[in-house]
Amino acid sequence: MSQLRFDYTTSDWVVFAPLRKLRPHHAAVVEATHPDATASSTESCPFCPGNERLTPAEIDAVRTDPHNETSWQVRVVPNKFPVLTIEESNGRSQDGRMFQHMGGCGAHEVVIESPDHGIFFGQLPAEHIELILKVIHRRYQDLKRDRRFQAIIIFKNHGVGAGTSLRHPHWQIIATPIVPRLSRLKFVEATEYFDRTGNCLYRDLLHEELAAKERLVAANEEFVAIIPYAAHLPFETWILPRRQQPTIDLLQAEQFRPLSEILKNVLLKLYVGLDNPDFNLTIDMAPRGDEEKEYFQWHIRIVPRLTTPAGFELGSGMSINTVLPEEAAAFLREGDTGAP
Amino acid sequence: MSQLRFDYTTSDWVVFAPLRKLRPHHAAVVEATHPDATASSTESCPFCPGNERLTPAEIDAVRTDPHNETSWQVRVVPNKFPVLTIEESNGRSQDGRMFQHMGGCGAHEVVIESPDHGIFFGQLPAEHIELILKVIHRRYQDLKRDRRFQAIIIFKNHGVGAGTSLRHPHWQIIATPIVPRLSRLKFVEATEYFDRTGNCLYRDLLHEELAAKERLVAANEEFVAIIPYAAHLPFETWILPRRQQPTIDLLQAEQFRPLSEILKNVLLKLYVGLDNPDFNLTIDMAPRGDEEKEYFQWHIRIVPRLTTPAGFELGSGMSINTVLPEEAAAFLREGDTGAP
Repeated sequence: MSQLRFDYTTSDWVVFAPLRKLRPHHAAVVEATHPDATASSTESCPFCPGNERLTPAEIDAVRTDPHNETSWQVRVVPNKFPVLTIEESNGRSQDGRMFQHMGGCGAHEVVIESPDHGIFFGQLPAEHIELILKVIHRRYQDLKRDRRFQAIIIFKNHGVGAGTSLRHPHWQIIATPIVPRLSRLKFVEATEYFDRTGNCLYRDLLHEELAAKERLVAANEEFVAIIPYAAHLPFETWILPRRQQPTIDLLQAEQFRPLSEILKNVLLKLYVGLDNPDFNLTIDMAPRGDEEKEYFQWHIRIVPRLTTPAGFELGSGMSINTVLPEEAAAFLREGDTGAP
Repeated sequence: MSQLRFDYTTSDWVVFAPLRKLRPHHAAVVEATHPDATASSTESCPFCPGNERLTPAEIDAVRTDPHNETSWQVRVVPNKFPVLTIEESNGRSQDGRMFQHMGGCGAHEVVIESPDHGIFFGQLPAEHIELILKVIHRRYQDLKRDRRFQAIIIFKNHGVGAGTSLRHPHWQIIATPIVPRLSRLKFVEATEYFDRTGNCLYRDLLHEELAAKERLVAANEEFVAIIPYAAHLPFETWILPRRQQPTIDLLQAEQFRPLSEILKNVLLKLYVGLDNPDFNLTIDMAPRGDEEKEYFQWHIRIVPRLTTPAGFELGSGMSINTVLPEEAAAFLREGDTGAP
């Protein structure tokens, strides 16, 4: 039974997903004791073909042969240890005047990238990446139909240092019953910028980055990859659409291939240039209900885990970046990934 | 040469402290290649008595014998690898319409806790902890005299997983030329709460926690330690003064001993109960210029590093806490630290 609690000091909601079977002081070993975490072979891995029975009931899949269960290319299943669940209520209750919680209503899904237990996302063919992104997009659209879900967080963790507990490559999707405070704050910034200038903040930033050139990492007819001028962390890379699209709702069929190609390209550059770094990847977009407002631009954010945030970051909320974006971008631009 | 860059998407300033001598892809090994990081013996440690020449010129110290350089009990020196420096300008420049930076103006000091290379903070006598806290308070007051410094971030990192690069126990103080966005946002929440209720948000929270009792960790005549109802991370512990004090400016001489005692007590409880976890400790307070407004309450925040924030946290800004505060507090309350 999970729940969310409201933090009056920041107006954030915090997700509480207690591990009932562990004593409190064992919190440190959450990842390590995850029952599936040690599955390094295809035999015991719940995400490998032939082990479909080890996951909860399948939600979606792409198969080469609809009559052959193990013939899937991409597969979506509920997370076996969800932080939020569809069965919980989104009702709110007071535990005291300053103590408000709500039920752990939401969804937590896993998108298994391919049957291959060990292949890196960037090494998959662009056609296969396109399949994955289309499945993720379909899951997003389906989850949006549940009006209790106020936000849908799409992300990928790569490497133990980035919080991965299962080795078989996968993405995750978490639907939350509230709009995260950070999402609201970013949208307010973009809205105020629009009110002041009449322009979309992200499109103006992209326009300036395209003119400056020095922080460009890659580009094609539909997308641009940059390390932004004020990137919070070393090699933090953004992929933005050239079209005006506040969320991925407007993503068109013909954009999936160029998106797959640039994502593959950027991830391979990071893989080769930084020797397969741990990283997190997220898709940022406008909040639910604001999809039609041209103030925001959805984008992919890839953040390698190269440094350790410490007390300064915790206390100030500020980031320390040890690599100038211009230098990081030049390094990635010039790197040869062997890809076309 | 460091600088700060403004992020238009969040209104955060990001600190850029590039490591000139390292190639960009070596960012990952910042901590490990820190010249002093390997000093595990007292012989080569720049913070051990007898090695005073290995640090930049001393800023402050408490000595038993003023004529004996090595007789110090607490010592403050500039950080040898500062992220911000007193020599840099706080002037702002445009690198383009959407690209604004300012000089890396600030200060970065290290407070060496004691001559002992290996002793844990919580194991120091309360009288010695009082010396440390008084030195930190004095440094805070001195740094505040420089009107270019808009915020003074006081913190301690314990353990490699919490970002420590030098083993000899120490605190750090960083003065920044801007008020961090997070600090402003928290103060706005507290101000709006005051406008609505006429009360200090933090005092009301503390009042409710004292009444509920179940999240109390420790208390004495001046301070209370709690794991807040909506703690963002497992075992996140706050120490708040019972008096109304927006910042540590108002901290009185007679409060230092009870503060030392409760801090020692809490850190020992964490040390024993969680087997010497890595942790970060920060002191949160009202922004500069708002010290007189009774909307805020300064507090110490101790956050053990028990879990790994990943893509969900990056994408949503929300936290996942795997241990209920009530259970964590009961566990710490009942733990026997062997301390009086």
